[in-house]
Amino acid sequence: MDKQIILFPMTKLNHHYQKLGSNYIFSEIEKRVEALKIKLPRSSILNLGVGDVTTPLYPPVIEALSKATQEMGDKKTFRGYGPSEGYAFLREAIAKTDYSNLISPEEIFISDGANTDIANLQEIFSVDNRVAIPDPAYPVYVETNVMAGRTRPLLKTGRYGGITYLPCTEENGMQPQPPYAHVDLIYLCSPNNPTGLAMDKELLTRWVNYAKAHEAVILFDGAYEAFITSDAPRSIYEIEGAKEVAIEIRSFSKSAGFTGLRCSYTVVPFELKLRDAGAIHSLHSLWKRRVETKSNGVSYPIQRAAAALYTPLGQKAMRETVQSYIERAQFLRDGLKQLGYTVYGGIDSPYVWCKTPPKVTSWEFFDFLLENAQIVTIPGIGFGQEGDGYIRLSGFAEKSVIDETLIRFKNLA
Amino acid sequence: MDKQIILFPMTKLNHHYQKLGSNYIFSEIEKRVEALKIKLPRSSILNLGVGDVTTPLYPPVIEALSKATQEMGDKKTFRGYGPSEGYAFLREAIAKTDYSNLISPEEIFISDGANTDIANLQEIFSVDNRVAIPDPAYPVYVETNVMAGRTRPLLKTGRYGGITYLPCTEENGMQPQPPYAHVDLIYLCSPNNPTGLAMDKELLTRWVNYAKAHEAVILFDGAYEAFITSDAPRSIYEIEGAKEVAIEIRSFSKSAGFTGLRCSYTVVPFELKLRDAGAIHSLHSLWKRRVETKSNGVSYPIQRAAAALYTPLGQKAMRETVQSYIERAQFLRDGLKQLGYTVYGGIDSPYVWCKTPPKVTSWEFFDFLLENAQIVTIPGIGFGQEGDGYIRLSGFAEKSVIDETLIRFKNLA
Repeated sequence: MDKQIILFPMTKLNHHYQKLGSNYIFSEIEKRVEALKIKLPRSSILNLGVGDVTTPLYPPVIEALSKATQEMGDKKTFRGYGPSEGYAFLREAIAKTDYSNLISPEEIFISDGANTDIANLQEIFSVDNRVAIPDPAYPVYVETNVMAGRTRPLLKTGRYGGITYLPCTEENGMQPQPPYAHVDLIYLCSPNNPTGLAMDKELLTRWVNYAKAHEAVILFDGAYEAFITSDAPRSIYEIEGAKEVAIEIRSFSKSAGFTGLRCSYTVVPFELKLRDAGAIHSLHSLWKRRVETKSNGVSYPIQRAAAALYTPLGQKAMRETVQSYIERAQFLRDGLKQLGYTVYGGIDSPYVWCKTPPKVTSWEFFDFLLENAQIVTIPGIGFGQEGDGYIRLSGFAEKSVIDETLIRFKNLA
Repeated sequence: MDKQIILFPMTKLNHHYQKLGSNYIFSEIEKRVEALKIKLPRSSILNLGVGDVTTPLYPPVIEALSKATQEMGDKKTFRGYGPSEGYAFLREAIAKTDYSNLISPEEIFISDGANTDIANLQEIFSVDNRVAIPDPAYPVYVETNVMAGRTRPLLKTGRYGGITYLPCTEENGMQPQPPYAHVDLIYLCSPNNPTGLAMDKELLTRWVNYAKAHEAVILFDGAYEAFITSDAPRSIYEIEGAKEVAIEIRSFSKSAGFTGLRCSYTVVPFELKLRDAGAIHSLHSLWKRRVETKSNGVSYPIQRAAAALYTPLGQKAMRETVQSYIERAQFLRDGLKQLGYTVYGGIDSPYVWCKTPPKVTSWEFFDFLLENAQIVTIPGIGFGQEGDGYIRLSGFAEKSVIDETLIRFKNLA
């Protein structure tokens, strides 16, 4: 038996998983909150940490879900397998309303979450690709590339060898800048989570030009595009030539309260092509093949619910809710500013990115706020090394929670 | 510019996708059916091809979906992000009803489809693993391993270099047998799609023993377990020691008509561990990490709908529907047998696997049936080289369609 085992390959498992740092941030937050609850059992805790919505689904969405549910119970209207890429009724509504038909329905892929797509899109690219990721950023960009084997081990600096980090610092306006060196695959998120800042037309144009010159591809995460109130582009396709270099991911999670319902979409333009080993390949074909092989599509009632967002009533409800979240975030931002804090975001985004006092780390400030004001935030280090001097506060919290947060911040001063 | 391009890596894309044969089978079937419709516009076509359900969702499921929908529209009961692994109410119901609590809820992961899980599970294993796959089998097993780079190119034989195919032939009772050589990762499907045959306890025990001796892992696809009417095991965990070597995937798609609703689950036992590079690793931890990073879980209303299947009314509806499908498949099987065809399946499965007449390929028989009887089937070659002498017929079709199918088969004789 022992002799036999020696013949087996040494690597049974995807050993890249071993490179992952622990994803402890949320469990660590929870642990510290629980500890506080024991210490101060009567305290009222204000949660501005997790970026989850609080407004229930809109009436037109509920109506569409109910109707589709009834259809599924009736032999005459029951639906089995749907198209892996999503139903035409939803893809057509998106193309028309969100892209004025400048994107065709066939270029749109419906999925069960921006998270899923942003995690899976890297699969159609070579593991040899050099990846560029903003810092701070949504941790899934880095982690899925670690899992896929595009990085070397975690360094003592808290960063992975092999990734080109794009620092977002006060010096560069907290915006990721095109690097001098070559990269193949670029993650951009606008408005960015966690900084809350949208990229302007000039910067996005520089990125599109960089991608063209380097035959690189941009994965543009627009999960928060609905929150843009400035004149920043809401879609990367507002930039000339972007269809040749960019994939765009959007979500109904935050704008329509779909975090518990699960629906999003990804645009892979027909124009997006890459030269590889002497031939030209369509990324649309590759992604289509991946979707058709690895998915049977999104639940029919959920797609009907999403389509209801494109009715006049759905659009109105969405605008109003987004507006109310934005107002809370702006109120929070302004309040913190008045108290002397340096804050970013809260204009084009539901998130406020607040600088910690001098020489205070993000975990220290987190602990300080938790213990002295019973306010839960997210320490910026959870989003990357450059996040260490910051905390993220969510404007998705109830208005009364935001009000109370500012009162407690004031009392801390 | 040209000079700069030379510096770029040659491989931009996942070049393993180029190895994939075209997944033309369904589009080719559709093309031939469309051609027939033009040639014989008045013919009534009987579709026994695609394995999709026809019975609508059960009343308790509709009720649960409606209730959850209302909850999502009410501020007091609205739910945002759920656990990536699924809600406890569903995992607990599955553990109790499907596994008599011999599997714990924490070992169960809820997903949006068996297809998704069977496609993604390979990710947690090394790309160097040797994979064994039955032939014929559900094409996703092979294709996802091709995409991941575990194979060499497609050979002229129609098979991929690097995969250990497990032929299911009349000589071995149409059942995959443990190979003499070493493999690391084994796909088994019982009852098998397309042959419709379930594996018995003796054969499954041999597989579990093989996996133990070879430190291999079995991915056990039980998507059709509800259809087993013989005494074949419905779960691989009925085999002693299977928890140490096997992951089991199940689906609500066929038993509960969820093909359009999307819900399934995967069991990764805590006991399942693998030695790798000198250390022992828990596959449960690996899969959990994958699920938490790449998914935000399944829609809340859909999970409530699935949970309704575990009520007495839900269980009764499921049993009755499965029984009606099985009766149709058995009727089809018996009818074809009486006409002199050699048939497999149709006892533990909704599928009937029918041998073509001597020296007739599966495409030739498909064409013959389509042109002379307007019956749509699936040519066996779509499931692998060993499927070439067979066609698959689906017992999910309406009873009236099955009746008419047999009449037309009779008239062909």
